[in-house]
Amino acid sequence: MSRITKTLIPLTAALLAASAPALAQEPAAPTSDAPFVFNTLLFLMGGFLVMFMAAGFAMLEAGLVRSKNVSMQCLKNIALYSIAGIMFWVCGYSLMYTGVTADTGWIGTLEPYSWPAAGEANEGDYSVASDWFFQMVFCATTASIVSGTVAERIKLWPFLIFVAILTGVMYPISGSWQWGAGWLSGMGFSDFAGSTIVHSVGGWAALTGAIILGARAGKYSEDGRVLPLPGSNIPLATLGTFILWLGWFGFNGGSQLAFGDNANASDVSRIFINTNLAACGGVVVSMLLMQLMYKKVDVTMALNGALAGLVSITAEPLMPSPLAAILIGGVGGVIVVLTVPLLDKLKIDDVVGAIPVHLFAGVWGTLAVPLTNSGASFGTQIVGILAYGAFTIVCSAILWSILKFTIGLRISEEEETLGLDKTEVGVEAYPEFR
Amino acid sequence: MSRITKTLIPLTAALLAASAPALAQEPAAPTSDAPFVFNTLLFLMGGFLVMFMAAGFAMLEAGLVRSKNVSMQCLKNIALYSIAGIMFWVCGYSLMYTGVTADTGWIGTLEPYSWPAAGEANEGDYSVASDWFFQMVFCATTASIVSGTVAERIKLWPFLIFVAILTGVMYPISGSWQWGAGWLSGMGFSDFAGSTIVHSVGGWAALTGAIILGARAGKYSEDGRVLPLPGSNIPLATLGTFILWLGWFGFNGGSQLAFGDNANASDVSRIFINTNLAACGGVVVSMLLMQLMYKKVDVTMALNGALAGLVSITAEPLMPSPLAAILIGGVGGVIVVLTVPLLDKLKIDDVVGAIPVHLFAGVWGTLAVPLTNSGASFGTQIVGILAYGAFTIVCSAILWSILKFTIGLRISEEEETLGLDKTEVGVEAYPEFR
Amino acid sequence: MSRITKTLIPLTAALLAASAPALAQEPAAPTSDAPFVFNTLLFLMGGFLVMFMAAGFAMLEAGLVRSKNVSMQCLKNIALYSIAGIMFWVCGYSLMYTGVTADTGWIGTLEPYSWPAAGEANEGDYSVASDWFFQMVFCATTASIVSGTVAERIKLWPFLIFVAILTGVMYPISGSWQWGAGWLSGMGFSDFAGSTIVHSVGGWAALTGAIILGARAGKYSEDGRVLPLPGSNIPLATLGTFILWLGWFGFNGGSQLAFGDNANASDVSRIFINTNLAACGGVVVSMLLMQLMYKKVDVTMALNGALAGLVSITAEPLMPSPLAAILIGGVGGVIVVLTVPLLDKLKIDDVVGAIPVHLFAGVWGTLAVPLTNSGASFGTQIVGILAYGAFTIVCSAILWSILKFTIGLRISEEEETLGLDKTEVGVEAYPEFR
Repeated sequence: MSRITKTLIPLTAALLAASAPALAQEPAAPTSDAPFVFNTLLFLMGGFLVMFMAAGFAMLEAGLVRSKNVSMQCLKNIALYSIAGIMFWVCGYSLMYTGVTADTGWIGTLEPYSWPAAGEANEGDYSVASDWFFQMVFCATTASIVSGTVAERIKLWPFLIFVAILTGVMYPISGSWQWGAGWLSGMGFSDFAGSTIVHSVGGWAALTGAIILGARAGKYSEDGRVLPLPGSNIPLATLGTFILWLGWFGFNGGSQLAFGDNANASDVSRIFINTNLAACGGVVVSMLLMQLMYKKVDVTMALNGALAGLVSITAEPLMPSPLAAILIGGVGGVIVVLTVPLLDKLKIDDVVGAIPVHLFAGVWGTLAVPLTNSGASFGTQIVGILAYGAFTIVCSAILWSILKFTIGLRISEEEETLGLDKTEVGVEAYPEFR
Repeated sequence: MSRITKTLIPLTAALLAASAPALAQEPAAPTSDAPFVFNTLLFLMGGFLVMFMAAGFAMLEAGLVRSKNVSMQCLKNIALYSIAGIMFWVCGYSLMYTGVTADTGWIGTLEPYSWPAAGEANEGDYSVASDWFFQMVFCATTASIVSGTVAERIKLWPFLIFVAILTGVMYPISGSWQWGAGWLSGMGFSDFAGSTIVHSVGGWAALTGAIILGARAGKYSEDGRVLPLPGSNIPLATLGTFILWLGWFGFNGGSQLAFGDNANASDVSRIFINTNLAACGGVVVSMLLMQLMYKKVDVTMALNGALAGLVSITAEPLMPSPLAAILIGGVGGVIVVLTVPLLDKLKIDDVVGAIPVHLFAGVWGTLAVPLTNSGASFGTQIVGILAYGAFTIVCSAILWSILKFTIGLRISEEEETLGLDKTEVGVEAYPEFR
Repeated sequence: MSRITKTLIPLTAALLAASAPALAQEPAAPTSDAPFVFNTLLFLMGGFLVMFMAAGFAMLEAGLVRSKNVSMQCLKNIALYSIAGIMFWVCGYSLMYTGVTADTGWIGTLEPYSWPAAGEANEGDYSVASDWFFQMVFCATTASIVSGTVAERIKLWPFLIFVAILTGVMYPISGSWQWGAGWLSGMGFSDFAGSTIVHSVGGWAALTGAIILGARAGKYSEDGRVLPLPGSNIPLATLGTFILWLGWFGFNGGSQLAFGDNANASDVSRIFINTNLAACGGVVVSMLLMQLMYKKVDVTMALNGALAGLVSITAEPLMPSPLAAILIGGVGGVIVVLTVPLLDKLKIDDVVGAIPVHLFAGVWGTLAVPLTNSGASFGTQIVGILAYGAFTIVCSAILWSILKFTIGLRISEEEETLGLDKTEVGVEAYPEFR
């Protein structure tokens, strides 16, 4: 029963009396499990890094909304991560990975997912529970992307209902096409860690929501001017970006899915480097472009430049050379600097810049795969991009619209003026500072 | 002497000339150490994740106190982690783990702990130094729990003296009963990662302190009204909660104590999932309950709901099914929503809600173990809960009282009005914003 | 093509079709790669922890500058990390590690570094790409040290040009003397993880910059008084310190450079403990000293005490006993408390205290190596300290001066009054709070 002292409890007893896990390796052939453990470790470590991205999104968004909506943004972010976790267990994982017809399937089965109970044998090359954990945090990331765009004017509960359907149904179904070995994987679509499957899907859902919701009050005046509504806390946004950058090592590195031998460990290392260099490229290029275009270097553009670089390399973080990674990420930085004002011209109000970062850079990253990976083709990449776009736009539009015309999506003008922290949360974010 | 280039230095020389650790694996049987390394890795990785929980507590508490006491709360948190580390080396570890009589012991020996020096053989299944590191951060967590409850009115140094005794003597002694293989483990008490041994112990110490200290000035008016004293920085509190959630994967996952084979790696993976789902349950249930009861969703309740879910699953994160984990955590969320106002009715001023989260949910989690682990019994769980409660209450009450009647525990009314940042720290947290 | 389902794709095909990495371990001798994977893991895990130190520096500095310069400090920190990453690939790594003449060399070759492409064999004891990643984040740390000292008055682009040369040329050249196996390693200099090679180099560059730049307007009055210019956000500075502390487990632990067997895993564990205890010592000693000297405990001194403790143990985190580690770190705490005012007397304006923490404690830590490591000598340690100091001072002075007399280093008085956020970034950090 000791935490450390006793190490000779038989394994079965140790598992039953779960408070006393024993250090009970079989004496014979103690190392044959090493690849299994390494692969499982990659999922767990990658998983907790990506889980922490939920904090990164929360800080990024809390920093970029106005102070009257900060508590709400914090609440939405912890809520969406929680709902995603539950929904991915309720039906998400099985819709995405279970019973998908190889090479042609477009949907899995609808059931809660289960894994071997404590003490049951877990055959295969990795712990299936560790795989579930890793896939779950990807699903949650998709929802995190949406919350920033639609911030400051969407009601809490309708947003969370959208999140539940997105993470439990929409993302898993479209995810099954590729990562569930369905029809797009049969065609040869290539998206290593999810530029399209995760980031553009989140981006399409966000774009659809932004259009259906409309812009924040006062953002766009009738004479065509754009009113800046600056974020309330830049260091928090910076922290969020660094946390996301950190988490991306798990996001891309973990997507190697194996770590048990020389070849896979070396590939994970290459992925770490390319992921990092792409973000570096995104930062440097967006900064230079800002300096050239505006004579000032907007820090939020540099932050989004980093994120756009990361999204850009996510479709193919393994094959590019270091220089290619820098350039792929750098183009992401260009995309951010050029398309943030473009959205404003279209009067699409994206509070945190998630659409340029996750959707536009995600499309770019997916298109860039064939540049460095001879196994991919532009045609198939375009098919994949369009398929994910069409499916997510249609489903999102239907869902946002149902919510809008039933329980309502948008807070009242008065609530918007007061801020969501007062009206829906009841807790101001900075009560002593305003 | 190079950092990488030379890899052929003999191992002994490499260890003496410690700046040049060589990549010197024995050529024969290179893999027989894999389980040892995996177990050590679990302790180190779990350890640094739990270490980071100190930052989580610091941010949570800095966000939930008023701005005039934020610098002090930051100072207390970095100080308590530092003192815990030193005291757990001075005597804590040995009191908890060394020389405890198996199945009947209640205390270990009193001496600084040591581990094999560099280059000495380290037999057994894991590095004993990695185990020390892992156990140390648990000890520090116990102290972190106290600091939030007694914030905004306790003097710095008396608080730190309490921390030194708590982490060097009280926590180790009671910890020895179970994790040192003492009398409670002999009875079959079951507390996998410390719902009782860590969280309720911190909670009892906090509760005793809150009662002996009394409430903050103005918190409870004579006519029975409760004055809300809202926290000054909600996104920091949110960040702290996410950091704690991240750290909990180390807290619970590392408590498996082994990672060297298929069975243990699979169990750690299950623990990750159950830990995560319990937190999700805590968030969702506390939010729904707030909406039903108050028509608003207090974000601090959702944050504490997450933490209560985590504490609830900590006594048994391995055996529950996913659904059971969600429900166990969800009950934690209910506990928080219902007992935070209860404490206010009793005029017990718990600044951050640590008593509901760590004590009440800790008791619930411990009681819930037999629901999913047939090796545990309700009777023994209750004995354990009461034993830890009685011991910690008595010791804490004596210690808090000695401090109160000697050097004094509580700051003066004037100091409380001015805030601790001005009077004891000399550095305001946000000098430009107030 | 599935993310998980198919595991039988031949390895070569899996690597070509990089979106479908297979879980394809060779069935024969599956465990012979374990030491390779462990060593690679140490680099990757240590690397992402040290990468996150960039966020720690960003938060520390954002918290310690005035609110009118916070956005700029965030921008500089993400920019310097990005530039360091690119420059260390362009030429840094090869200048430091490639073609350095053993025992006498002082510089490597000047070329972009490359590593085996995906699927190419990676011989040796670790993935060379993982090593590059680990060494890169050390290089970035050096630049992070500089940015805090020269904050609030240096122009953005000249600072970044300095960073590019520091990380691409200066740090790599001097690093090659020891870690590239050059002349100082031939002499027997000992600096395990970089008290001198990283921290004092950053500190010397910062000191030189502070002198050439001059103090912030108003900091030192003509009659000799020192105007405190308090940091704007203490909890952010606290968070930054905790993140740096966390990252230091990677910094020092990863510098063991091997994790593949019992001996190395045990040594990494010892390093974790000593690193932690030194920081604890730095905190406690600096707090006690502040209380004795000033009757108040300045939280920024406790934070810098932690960092000074960490820097102090970095030259030799393996050999000291726990008590020695506490004392070595404690002396670091003394150094901070005594030398921060000293710099003010010399009218050297170090905004965040980086010179005491990284330079003075770095020198102390390097001098302390022979106390616990019989393989080191005071004479050689002094030679190393002086060599790094002389080289970095001379190069930095030349570079800072060139920048000063060409494009200019310092912002105008008017810009300094307005703050860099308005003049160079165009984004205020806290637009609603001032």
